[in-house]
Amino acid sequence: MPADARIRTAIVLLSGGMDSCVSLAHAYDDGFVPAALHVNYGQRTQARELRAFNDICDHYGILQRLVVDISHLAQIGGSSLTDDTLEISSSPHTFKPSGTPHLPNTYVPFRNANILAIATSWAEVINAEAIYIGAVEEDSSGYPDCTEDFFMAFQQVIDTGTKPETTIRLHTPVIRHSKAQIVTDGVNLQAPLHLTWSCYRREDVACGTCDSCRLRLRGFANAGVPDPIPYV
Amino acid sequence: MPADARIRTAIVLLSGGMDSCVSLAHAYDDGFVPAALHVNYGQRTQARELRAFNDICDHYGILQRLVVDISHLAQIGGSSLTDDTLEISSSPHTFKPSGTPHLPNTYVPFRNANILAIATSWAEVINAEAIYIGAVEEDSSGYPDCTEDFFMAFQQVIDTGTKPETTIRLHTPVIRHSKAQIVTDGVNLQAPLHLTWSCYRREDVACGTCDSCRLRLRGFANAGVPDPIPYV
Repeated sequence: MPADARIRTAIVLLSGGMDSCVSLAHAYDDGFVPAALHVNYGQRTQARELRAFNDICDHYGILQRLVVDISHLAQIGGSSLTDDTLEISSSPHTFKPSGTPHLPNTYVPFRNANILAIATSWAEVINAEAIYIGAVEEDSSGYPDCTEDFFMAFQQVIDTGTKPETTIRLHTPVIRHSKAQIVTDGVNLQAPLHLTWSCYRREDVACGTCDSCRLRLRGFANAGVPDPIPYV
Repeated sequence: MPADARIRTAIVLLSGGMDSCVSLAHAYDDGFVPAALHVNYGQRTQARELRAFNDICDHYGILQRLVVDISHLAQIGGSSLTDDTLEISSSPHTFKPSGTPHLPNTYVPFRNANILAIATSWAEVINAEAIYIGAVEEDSSGYPDCTEDFFMAFQQVIDTGTKPETTIRLHTPVIRHSKAQIVTDGVNLQAPLHLTWSCYRREDVACGTCDSCRLRLRGFANAGVPDPIPYV
C-alpha cells in the first residue's frame, strides 16, 4: 500500500477514549502515518464512541479507517456469564476491562487478543509496521490481557504468524501510565482530548459520575489541567 | 460450567473438513467432552460446511456448539488484496490457507490467530481446558499461522492473557500429518469421515477435481481406504 517507501504506517486502535487518543498522538510523534481501527461490540454508548473515533480521525485527517463489529463475540460472554460476573466485569469504552460492572453481558474475556488479531490482519494487508494499543495496566484491575507479559507474548505470535518479510511491532505507549500522566502526555503531544469520550452512561453530555467519568476527572485534576469536555 | 469436576471440556475448531473432524476424534480419544466452534467467513460453500459441522456434531451428540460469523474480517482482505493475490491466496474451507487461489477476496492473513482468539474467549467462559485445531503444516504452503512455532507462541498468549486459575492447552493433533495419515487416523478413531465436506466448488456432490477434492482423494488413495462420500 505505501508505494512511497518513506511512508511508515501504523494501525492505531482508537476507541474514542483518552488512552487511545493519546496513543494515537504517540504514533504521530514516533513518525508514523496512522490507520485507525475502531471496534464496536454492542456497548451502550457505541454511537457516541464511534462519533469520537471519527472526530479524532477528522482532526488528524486520517484517511484509512476501519470499523469492525465484533458484537458476535458478545454471545460468548452474554450467554455464559453467571457467577463470574463480578470478577470479569469490564469497562465498555476501552480496549480493556477496567473493573467497572456496567456491561458485563457484553464482556468477552481475552478481548484484547481478539482485537489485536484483527489489527494484525489489517496491518499485514496494508503493510503497516506497527500497532498501537492504549492499554493501561494500572486500570486493568489485574485482568491479564492488559499486562506487558501478554503484549510481549502477542508480539511473538505476530512474529511467528505473519509473513517472514513482515515486521509489525506492537506499541503500548501508555501501559505504565497513570491517568494524570496520560492527560499530561496528551497535552504535550497536542492530542485532541476535547474530542474524546469516556462516559458510558450518557451520549449527549458526560455524566461526571460514572466510574469512567470519575477516573477521567481525577486524571485531569491530578494533572492540573481542566477537562475540556462539558459535563452535566 | 462443568459442575461435575470429572468433565473435562475441550473447544474443537470444526470446519466440517477431514482435518478438523479427525482432530475432534482425537479430542474424544484424549478423554475430553468437546464443545464445537464453527466459523463462517463468507466462503462459497459456507452452507454445506455448516451442514457438515452440524452432521458431525449430531453424530457425536455434541451439545455445546457455537457458530461465529467473521465475514466482517473479509472487508480487510477484500478491500486491499491487490498485488499480493497470488502469494496469500487461500483454501476457504479449512482454518488454514492451503495455497489454492479460489477465494482470495475473502482471505484474511493471520486468520488462525483470529479464530484462536475467539476459541480462547469461549474456552475461558465455559472453563474448557483445551483447544483443538486441525491445522496441517504440510498443507499450509508455508503460510506462517499454520506452523508449530506459531501455535507455541499462541500458547504463551493464552497463558499470559487468561486468568491465572485458567489452564487452556492448545492441541494440534494432525499438524505433522500427511492427508493419508489423517485418513488412517480417522479410520482408527472411527471418525465420521462420511459426514465431512472438502469440496469448495459444489455443495450437492463433491466435484472431485478442485484442489481440495484432489488432495482429499489422494489422501484416501495413499491410505488404501475408499472415500465414503459420493463424487460427481
